[in-house]
Amino acid sequence: MKMSLGAKTLAMPSPVWVIGTYDAAGTPNLMTVAWGGICCSKPPAVSISLREATYTYACVVQRRAFTVNIPSVSHAAAADLAGVISGRDGDKFAAAGLTAIPSDLVDAPYVREFPLNLECRLVDSLKLGLHTLFVGEIVDVKADEDVLDGEGYPSVAGVRPFTFVVTEQSYYALGNRIGPAFTAKKGAAS
Amino acid sequence: MKMSLGAKTLAMPSPVWVIGTYDAAGTPNLMTVAWGGICCSKPPAVSISLREATYTYACVVQRRAFTVNIPSVSHAAAADLAGVISGRDGDKFAAAGLTAIPSDLVDAPYVREFPLNLECRLVDSLKLGLHTLFVGEIVDVKADEDVLDGEGYPSVAGVRPFTFVVTEQSYYALGNRIGPAFTAKKGAAS
Repeated sequence: MKMSLGAKTLAMPSPVWVIGTYDAAGTPNLMTVAWGGICCSKPPAVSISLREATYTYACVVQRRAFTVNIPSVSHAAAADLAGVISGRDGDKFAAAGLTAIPSDLVDAPYVREFPLNLECRLVDSLKLGLHTLFVGEIVDVKADEDVLDGEGYPSVAGVRPFTFVVTEQSYYALGNRIGPAFTAKKGAAS
Repeated sequence: MKMSLGAKTLAMPSPVWVIGTYDAAGTPNLMTVAWGGICCSKPPAVSISLREATYTYACVVQRRAFTVNIPSVSHAAAADLAGVISGRDGDKFAAAGLTAIPSDLVDAPYVREFPLNLECRLVDSLKLGLHTLFVGEIVDVKADEDVLDGEGYPSVAGVRPFTFVVTEQSYYALGNRIGPAFTAKKGAAS
């Protein structure tokens, strides 16, 4: 039986991405987001949503750039910390034990310790309410060499990404591979 | 060592959501998307990105509504099918062995067999390139009673959602719970 749960953000799963920016003084800053996703294939683009009250919001607006840094399960504590404290209170890279690498393509730093890093140039934004959606064109992706598969793409076994499940306010690792996508034939499913 | 992989959509993980719409004739239609995410907490909103060439694109624009239907791992074949065939070729609900329930709140159908359904009213859009991002305000969430936890929220154990990993073109189930979010204290991470 279907139950009505009301107007709530009860989708799952959400990503756990750590956003890298510079503030007005040039200090590297971090913030963890779960509201985001890939939003265009050509040009490649990603969206993240930020509350205007966050320190990162002003950084993205001013620098017109951000990085999306994808942590491994081993970085869950650091990612959680970056979602709890504010850059106003000091250097979040230092607090989280992480290292900022300046991007040579966009005006934002990325996280050395995280295996996968997207360098993004702000191309659009949409004020929706409490959150504003920012669209970043992905100008390059950096990855640790040891997380790449035989075809040169980041693998799940290498990156070991995790997700945020809002309904449980919890982080979950990825589990078993179900199978390849786009293999269905008409009439094959039921 | 960091390797440059180029300007590509190599983030992970992405959701696997099946979008429900009506076409101009009122026929229920389905399409699986991985480009999307929650994008605002207040009002609650979700974004999905669609290519203009898809049958669902015109349905969303005309009806100004869509549903986001979250499949369980047991529905992976049906979800994959809905991402491969087009509504132009016939009734995708029937092809996928799924049942359309008319929403009484928005002009779109949702999927009876999937455990979690978001009913969305189109409130904004942003043409980005190959994809257009559509923002839907979530006006209600429906869930199967048997996937709710003790607090009345959909649980991972109940919903058994899965993800799309673009770098491997594969579906992955969620795995182990890492822990609760937002518990970090300054200085606790390393």
